[in-house]
Order: sequence, then structure tokens, then C-alpha cells
Amino acid sequence: MIKKLNNRFEHLNIVNHLLRWTILTIPVSFIVGSLVALFLWLLEKATELRWQHSWLLYLLPVAGILIYAVYKYLGKNAEAGNNLIMEEIHEPGGGVPSRMTPLVLGTTIITHLFGGSAGREGTAVQMGGSMAALLGRWFKLNHPDTSILLMCGIAAGFGAVFGTPVTGALFALEVLTIGRLNYKALLPCFMASVLADFTCSAYGIHHTAYHITFKAVAASNISFLHFDYLLLAKVILAGVFFGLAGYCFSELSHTIKNYSNRFIKIKWLIPVIGGFIIIGLTFALGTRDYLGLGVTNPDPHGVSIVSAFTPGGAAYFSWFWKILFTAITLGMGFKGGEVTPLFFIGATLGNTIAVLMGAPVDLMAGLGFIAVFAGATNTPVACTIMGVELFGGDHILYYAIACFTAYYFSGHTGIYLSQRLGLSKT
Amino acid sequence: MIKKLNNRFEHLNIVNHLLRWTILTIPVSFIVGSLVALFLWLLEKATELRWQHSWLLYLLPVAGILIYAVYKYLGKNAEAGNNLIMEEIHEPGGGVPSRMTPLVLGTTIITHLFGGSAGREGTAVQMGGSMAALLGRWFKLNHPDTSILLMCGIAAGFGAVFGTPVTGALFALEVLTIGRLNYKALLPCFMASVLADFTCSAYGIHHTAYHITFKAVAASNISFLHFDYLLLAKVILAGVFFGLAGYCFSELSHTIKNYSNRFIKIKWLIPVIGGFIIIGLTFALGTRDYLGLGVTNPDPHGVSIVSAFTPGGAAYFSWFWKILFTAITLGMGFKGGEVTPLFFIGATLGNTIAVLMGAPVDLMAGLGFIAVFAGATNTPVACTIMGVELFGGDHILYYAIACFTAYYFSGHTGIYLSQRLGLSKT
Repeated sequence: MIKKLNNRFEHLNIVNHLLRWTILTIPVSFIVGSLVALFLWLLEKATELRWQHSWLLYLLPVAGILIYAVYKYLGKNAEAGNNLIMEEIHEPGGGVPSRMTPLVLGTTIITHLFGGSAGREGTAVQMGGSMAALLGRWFKLNHPDTSILLMCGIAAGFGAVFGTPVTGALFALEVLTIGRLNYKALLPCFMASVLADFTCSAYGIHHTAYHITFKAVAASNISFLHFDYLLLAKVILAGVFFGLAGYCFSELSHTIKNYSNRFIKIKWLIPVIGGFIIIGLTFALGTRDYLGLGVTNPDPHGVSIVSAFTPGGAAYFSWFWKILFTAITLGMGFKGGEVTPLFFIGATLGNTIAVLMGAPVDLMAGLGFIAVFAGATNTPVACTIMGVELFGGDHILYYAIACFTAYYFSGHTGIYLSQRLGLSKT
Repeated sequence: MIKKLNNRFEHLNIVNHLLRWTILTIPVSFIVGSLVALFLWLLEKATELRWQHSWLLYLLPVAGILIYAVYKYLGKNAEAGNNLIMEEIHEPGGGVPSRMTPLVLGTTIITHLFGGSAGREGTAVQMGGSMAALLGRWFKLNHPDTSILLMCGIAAGFGAVFGTPVTGALFALEVLTIGRLNYKALLPCFMASVLADFTCSAYGIHHTAYHITFKAVAASNISFLHFDYLLLAKVILAGVFFGLAGYCFSELSHTIKNYSNRFIKIKWLIPVIGGFIIIGLTFALGTRDYLGLGVTNPDPHGVSIVSAFTPGGAAYFSWFWKILFTAITLGMGFKGGEVTPLFFIGATLGNTIAVLMGAPVDLMAGLGFIAVFAGATNTPVACTIMGVELFGGDHILYYAIACFTAYYFSGHTGIYLSQRLGLSKT
């Protein structure tokens, strides 16, 4: 009888918990979803402006000084970005400042307007985290609850910016610690991610649609094997390369950041030099394909994430150049996320691997898209789900193989230095 | 330089780890996949025999005595089944005996042949775990490695028996502890699950295909809401009921087991009485729909999992009767899994909810199928993935909503008493 009563209270507790978090997540989701919509709209305008006025690229070094100055005089601890949010979730300290939102929004748009190679998710996640922190202070939440609300902010930002609500929630749960997925904030994060995505799309924001048209057939001529084992082997091998690409990207970003901080004593010169390197590389390569977001390309023969899904849509070393451009952009003081460049790196590397190995180009591009990201952020489950949300569920087995393999081969560092190592991979 | 070398060793360690586990998982997967193929074939034959010879049901009490005697005189500690395997993974003790495989295989077939209401996954998982334990002893593995190999056995059994390799791997990682998904054995489990599924299908075993033909349209007449919010609300509410159904099933099974052990002093009488109750209920209801596996039904007007995906394919209380039949069968000494009955309970409850709420029947049946299971076993992520593997990826957002909601509403107990509580749900 007492057990029965306890059980009844258990359900009451759960209902209470859910109602409370529903009320807490609604404002976070609405604000973050709206900000992400504004951000995506501004980003589109900035990208179009850059396409129309190619001279904007020459101002990239000046833009670098501007970003440097903004963070130096207004930034407080906001420069730490994603890492600050993750540290505050692990152990609440000084809090995430609200100014992070306008700062990261403005400087990311500047980076993109003048041709820096960067992404979106860092900005969305930082806006999500800082708005969640602000609301947490208003609601006078205690430390554990603040940490859940910060996770909701990450989930809301991620879910809205890519239009992938399930992935957004799992990403927030998975990214904090390598080797573990904790359900502490499962439903709050999920609600935040879904509501933010709804809010963002209610403003009429559309996300790019990617298509994998490849249909698996049992190509094996050994009739009792109902599966294309050769393709499976290619996917495993590709997964290894995707993981190594993610590893190279993380290492190169950290190395460039460390070296430029060590050897360039006048700090505002770092983004200036970075800007000049980007300009120089653009001229040396004779292409603007690696500037900016790279999701689409105004040049029908240019390389972009979308083009990488078609045969001939990427050069053999597109992935390498994008790694370099992005590591310089983000390692030398410009702002933005890492994930869209990781999508670019993965999709173009997948394209190249498909050509070299003789595999379906769209499938391999899609696998690279999610798997390089899985490796670099150590989030294989979220990325498998992302494959389903972006490309449909037909090839989930390949998504999982590519992401899990890449996860193993990306080493124990990732792009987020504040990620904790919960469990060694070996 | 030293860091560089360390990194290189890091990758060597990972390669070494993967090669080692590839070699270890291949025999486990092959043996478990083959056993599952045999099991599924025998199960089909037993079910067909039962359909042809309806008098077999009257021997159910005798079959109960047989199962009781087999476990009493030959069983050692094998009777603990899934719970024993989970305990051995958490803390290695006396080991999982190899005799578990023939015992559970034989007694499950007997249960199904004479009309007990039971499933398949318990049997597959127990065969997987006991074969993994046997190989672990042969390979002279230490405790931590044995525990990973046992998890591989679970993954292999689960992946092969339902033809869902990604789900099998995540299920093994997720089921051990409530509220946490640990990547300790991510790749070994995944390889085991995939290889066992391949092995099983190489024998020509086919899995039932379920179809959700419903296509989401923005049915809302508020044009800026690009989503059917009414359906979303219905799915959330349905998720609550799916969770409560999972909770009822777990509680009822445990209660029936406890009470029959407490009040029926002559132990062999327990399955005899259970058998008679099943026979009595069958006559009282005038239908054999709730006997056996329930995936299909020889009677075109009968209720089965497949029929529940079509309008009129389930009665209002089909889910309740299946809970009762299964809790009696498994709580009173017969053998088999819980998962296929949970699919039945979920799909028929989903059918009923769809009719009552005015929602698409196939979608709700599919959601119930995965969500009741998610609630009763506390594995929401694996079940979301299962939705994708069984029904395709279009509705992954609904899968996640239903499974996560059901997970919250199923309370802190599940069908596996050896599952640890890693984290409270509130």
C-alpha cells in the first residue's frame, strides 16, 4: 500500500517536473528561436552582399580589427564562447553574460560579410546559452536548474539553426562529456529544441534540403548475402577517413590558435594577419569557394555543400582547403561556428572518396557531412539522428557505421576544449 | 613533439582496440546470429502447429510442469535469465551458464507451441549472453572484457531477432542503467549487432515489415505554423498513455510473480494454474488473438500487431487483454521475451487512441509499438532509432516525442529488475 502510494507520488513528481520545465523552456525556446531566425536572415543577406560586392573580401583584415576591438572593450568573458557555456554547465562559476548574444551575432555576421570561412552553430549555441543564463537569473534558478536551462539553450540554438529538433536535443546531452549520454535534461532539452525550431520556421526561415537518392540493392552476386558488403566495407574505410579529418581539423584549429597567440605579440595583428592569409589563399587558389558558409555557391561550377552531393561537385582537395580556411578564420580571431565548415569538409571529402572508391556520390557526401562532425565533436548518436533528420531514414545503418567509426578515429580531443572525457575510447 | 607522438599512439591504441574486438565479436555474432535464425524458424513452425492444432492449448498446464521441471533439475541459476546477464555485466559473479541457451530456446518454443503469450527478445538476449559468456571463458577474458562481450551478446541477440542492427547496439548500451547511455562498448556492440543480423538473414530469415503510409501535411489553417500542432498534441498525450501502459505491464508482471510465489506453496502448481487461467480467459473472451507471439493472425478478422496498423484492426481493450495474458504467462513460470507482447500492447493501444482522438491509425500504432517498449525498458533513444529502422525516418520527431514522453511516464521500475537507476527521472 505504501509502495503504491509512493508510486503514485512518483508519477505526480514526474508531472510536476514536466510542467515546471515546460513553463521554463517556453520563453527560452521562443527567444532563442526568434534570435536564430534573425541570425539566419542576416546571414543570408550578408552572404548575398558578399557575393555581389567581391571587394568586401579586401576589408577582411579591417573586419578582424573591429571584431578584436569589440571583444576587447565590450567582451568581458564572452570570448570563451561555447567553452564558457559548457564549463558553466559542468560547474557554475561566474555565469554566462547576456552580452554574448549581441556580440557573437554581430561579429559572426561581420566575419561572413567579409568572407571569413565559418559556420553557424557556434553563434546559435552561444545565443542560446546566454539567453538561457539571463532567464535563469530572472527566474532565480539554483545551480542545477541553471545548468539544465543552459543545456536547453544549447539544444534550442542547435535545433533551430539546422532545423533538426531531435538532433538538437541529443547534441546538447551528448556534447558535454565524451563517451556518455546523460538523460538529466532529456525532456527539457527536447522541448526547447522542438519549440525553438517551430519558432524559427514560423518566421518563414527555410533550411537547405539535401537529397540522397541512392537506393541500396543487394549488389552481391552471392545470393544468400542480402546486402552490399563491398559498399559496407567502403563505408567503414570512409568512416576512418572522416574521423581523421575531424581530428585534423580540431588539431589544426587549436595549433593555429596557440601559435598565433604565442608568436604574434600585438594581439590586434592576429586577425589582420589571418585576414591577409585568407585573401592570399583565395588568390593563390583562384577560387572563392572556401569563403563564408559554403552551403550553396553563386557560381554553378563552384564547390559547395550542395554541389558535393553530385558527381563532379567537389575537387580532390576541397576538404583540405576548407579545413585550412576555417582553421585560420576561427583560430585567428574571427567568429562563427565550426559545424557548417565541418559539413563542407565532410561532404567534399565524401565526394572525393566516392570517386576514388567507386561508391555512390550522394551517399558518401551525406555520410561525410554527418561523420566528420561526429568525429570532431564526439557526438556519434546525435549525428546518426541528424542523418535521419536531414537525409531520411533509409540508410541509417550506414549513418551509424560512419559516425561510430569516425568517433573512434577522431582521437580524444575535439573542437570543444571544455568537453570532458567521461570514458576513454579504447 | 611528445604530444604528437602520444597522439600517434592514441590512434594506434584505437586501431589495436578495434582489431581485437573485431576478432572477438565475429564468433559471438556468428553463433548468436545462427541460433537466432534457428530460434525464429522453430518459432514459426511452433506457431503454425498451434494454429493447425487448436487442442494444443489444453496442454498448456502440462507444458508448464515440463518447463518447471526442466529449470528445477537442469537450470542451476539460468532461471534468472536477462537479469542474470545484466547483473554479470554490472558486477561479474558466478558467470552466465551456457546451458541457458538450450534451456531458454527449448522452453520458449514450448511456451509458444502450447499458446502462452510471450515474446522473442528475452530468449535471443539470453542466448546471446550465455554464448558470449562461454566464448569469454574460452578466450580467458578478464572481468571488464567479459562484461563488454556480454553486452555484445545482448546486442547480437536483439539486433538479429528484430532485424534492427542499430537499435540492437544502442539497446545493449542503454538498457543497463536508467538515465544514461554509456559508450564503453559502442563499437563492439555495434559490430556484434550488425554481424549477427547479417548472419541471421543469410539463413533466409525474413522479418515482418510494418508500414506507416501516413504523410504529414501542415493541416493547420494558420499559415505561418508549418506543422500540424493538433497532431503533435495528440502524440504527446498518447505518449503519456504509452508510458503508463508500460508501467502497468511491469507492475502487473512483478505483482503476479510475487503473489503466485507467496501464495502457491507447491511450486509446480504455479505454471499449471497459470496455464488454466490462460485457457479460461481464452474461452471467456472467445478469441485466441492474445495467445502466442501475436505478430500476425491466421484469422483475417483477428487482432495482431500487423492488423493494428489498419483501422478496425484492434478492439478497444486489446491492449489490456494482452497485458493480462502476458503478465500471467511470464509471471507464472512460462518462458519467452516481453518485447513482442509490448509491441502488441503498444500497437493496439495506439490503434484505440487513434480512433478515439481522430489521428492516423498507422502512425499511432507505430508510435505505440516503440513507445510502450521504450517506457517498460527505459530505452527511449534505442526505441526512437527502432522506429526509424522499422518504419522509416519520416516521422522521427513523433517517434522521439512518443518515446521520450513514455520514458518519463513509465516510472522508475521497468521489466528488468536488474536495471540500475543511474539518474532519477525528475
